[in-house]
Amino acid sequence: MNQTYEQQYLQQLGERAKQASYALANLSAVQKAALLNAIAAALTANTQALLTANAKDVAAAQAEGLSAALIDRLQLDESRLAGIIADIGTVVRLSDPIGEEFGSRVLDNGLRLTRRRVPLGVIGVIYEARPNVTVDIAVLALKTGNAVILRGGKETLESNKLLSEVIRSAIASQGLPQDAVQLIDSPDRALVTGLLKLDRYVDMIVPRGGQALQRHCAEQATMPVILGGIGVCHLYVDKQADLKRALAVIANAKVQRPTVCNALDTLLVDELIASCFVPQIAKYLAPLGVCFSACSHSAGLLEGLGVTVTLATDEDFANEWLSLTLGIKIVKDIDDAISHIRTYSSGHSEAILTDDIHAAAHFMNQVNSAAVYVNASTRFTDGGQFGLGAEVAVSTQKLHARGPMGLEALTTYKWLAWGDYTSRS
Amino acid sequence: MNQTYEQQYLQQLGERAKQASYALANLSAVQKAALLNAIAAALTANTQALLTANAKDVAAAQAEGLSAALIDRLQLDESRLAGIIADIGTVVRLSDPIGEEFGSRVLDNGLRLTRRRVPLGVIGVIYEARPNVTVDIAVLALKTGNAVILRGGKETLESNKLLSEVIRSAIASQGLPQDAVQLIDSPDRALVTGLLKLDRYVDMIVPRGGQALQRHCAEQATMPVILGGIGVCHLYVDKQADLKRALAVIANAKVQRPTVCNALDTLLVDELIASCFVPQIAKYLAPLGVCFSACSHSAGLLEGLGVTVTLATDEDFANEWLSLTLGIKIVKDIDDAISHIRTYSSGHSEAILTDDIHAAAHFMNQVNSAAVYVNASTRFTDGGQFGLGAEVAVSTQKLHARGPMGLEALTTYKWLAWGDYTSRS
Repeated sequence: MNQTYEQQYLQQLGERAKQASYALANLSAVQKAALLNAIAAALTANTQALLTANAKDVAAAQAEGLSAALIDRLQLDESRLAGIIADIGTVVRLSDPIGEEFGSRVLDNGLRLTRRRVPLGVIGVIYEARPNVTVDIAVLALKTGNAVILRGGKETLESNKLLSEVIRSAIASQGLPQDAVQLIDSPDRALVTGLLKLDRYVDMIVPRGGQALQRHCAEQATMPVILGGIGVCHLYVDKQADLKRALAVIANAKVQRPTVCNALDTLLVDELIASCFVPQIAKYLAPLGVCFSACSHSAGLLEGLGVTVTLATDEDFANEWLSLTLGIKIVKDIDDAISHIRTYSSGHSEAILTDDIHAAAHFMNQVNSAAVYVNASTRFTDGGQFGLGAEVAVSTQKLHARGPMGLEALTTYKWLAWGDYTSRS
Repeated sequence: MNQTYEQQYLQQLGERAKQASYALANLSAVQKAALLNAIAAALTANTQALLTANAKDVAAAQAEGLSAALIDRLQLDESRLAGIIADIGTVVRLSDPIGEEFGSRVLDNGLRLTRRRVPLGVIGVIYEARPNVTVDIAVLALKTGNAVILRGGKETLESNKLLSEVIRSAIASQGLPQDAVQLIDSPDRALVTGLLKLDRYVDMIVPRGGQALQRHCAEQATMPVILGGIGVCHLYVDKQADLKRALAVIANAKVQRPTVCNALDTLLVDELIASCFVPQIAKYLAPLGVCFSACSHSAGLLEGLGVTVTLATDEDFANEWLSLTLGIKIVKDIDDAISHIRTYSSGHSEAILTDDIHAAAHFMNQVNSAAVYVNASTRFTDGGQFGLGAEVAVSTQKLHARGPMGLEALTTYKWLAWGDYTSRS
């Protein structure tokens, strides 16, 4: 069978990653710390060259007329790069999950059995724009003894090429295979689809990007994919909520950083408090720049209050806003709220505000998203906030890892058994 | 958009399963025990009808000229059915993993955070021939609060239809939604492919069947799939092995039950002991009915010993024999053995026989299959043998669950956080 050039390229990429993963799998924590420190030092030493490469990306983005927000995301300066490098130090100080043994016991059949935590092997990461992901993911993968194949956005190709070259040289300087980190440096989209078929070599795919990328990976990948990072998040204000204290939490969930996945998308208000509370919400949030995508009931209550309101469609309620637009819907009761969440949520983060212990327990039990909050902002769903020390992604699927993924999500276990020339009877 | 009849059918199937899963998710252990006991009682009460339905499947299979082995697998009799029902009692007595909380702590930001173990939701299982799987999987799913969509082989359609009807009636008798268990009762293959696209409703697919089914699921499914049950298993006889004791372990791994996934496929022999040991193997295994698929070196050593030998190709070494054929290859040393395993293994079970502690540790560290043995038969890779009390499948992939999957593999967790109207700073 004739292979295309792309197939050959991907085949080699996978084979090299797999070979490199064998060398990484049994490194000690001390060796991995030395490796990560060498990478940090090499990035520091190459600061000027990295900024020059990044400037090319920025210039190209400006020439193509990309938005200022996007250009800001891809731009590096000395302080941002220093921040990225400083984060490597944080990862170095995290404890190494590899090698831990758990569930050890002697079985009735005489075998001594244990489970040992080991690297996954080869991880493929597909991401957009931000060049910090290149460093973050390479470092987290190496910390857990995994090889990684990176595919960044074409907007940061020059930055990513040099970042990965510097990282690869640092790996080689430690006597380790530089193919532990490989970048797909062609913008050819067929290579993404090809990567998703490389199940012989790639153990897990992590897409870090929007809905279209997630969907493409779910549909095309033949290996496990961790979907995540899409948050259609809800906050339900129960009839027993402390409405004065509720306002600040709602504002925090919506306004503190509206462009991220754990920001609030739809506010659900119990109808018993709606006529009193909805105008208060409008008064509190409008000065913060919030406009509303409202159900017909709440739209009526918002009328004449000088806020921007549009009538919400079903599609609107399924939308991740990533902006200062807030969906608002008046619900009959807590079960109506739960039913709305089950229909429209992406399974990321939901909250209830209530002083009623029964309502709190019912919401916790019935809502099955990755993170469920009582009397707190949805903005806490984050590896750092949850004390994981690092964040690979926020998973919205239920297998392997759910919610913020720390280092452990980059590992698996194997069963090890010792016998004495033992046969099964 | 016009939906086909199949799409509508699958849509309803998924929607019903999802709705049923909500009712199951918060059942107590006592309620689930009552449910399982009711199912066992209903199956017992319907023994004669179930045997009559099964007899139709057997008659159809005989008319179609299916092999005696296959017919034996699908046939029920009073004692087999009683065994299947007795297994429900075993599952009832297992401890319920749902509701357990772990990793609980108070975060610096003031939130009280915990992870609670919850059901996955809806599980799809695609399997072949054996009607016991219908009962086993339904019971394990219900025990963990999951709804299940079953798709059995067409050879057991009559048996599966009645089994699932009896189970559904028992569920309804407990005041629970009978759609907690649904059977796809049409042999239309398009429904399997359609099921694999129902990611909106189905949280996990478990294919229990051969290579072709596994591959179809890996390629077509848009939700997570647990691949498994294909074992190309290796046993390496190190130069320091106790050769006398080794023979019984090799025989056990190959002969005790050659048709299952943890049976031995390829024996790797260190070349330093090959000329002495290979003839002993032949002498020991040939009377047990074993024939050999041998590398050219071992074929030479087997010549003239009155055993059946064919020369192995690369494809042969990648084959799961499921028969009394044993692959045999002479390797230069332990690293050559490890390299062979990395190339040909399906990641199921591998063993080393050795008295050398260094060889044992090296093999354990370098071989990354689901189960790795020192001085034991590969036949132990099994939920029952590993003390899990039940077995959903044996996973050969690295995410979520690896090796024998017990009840916990049918669960996930959600993060629960309590604040006091807490905002992120």
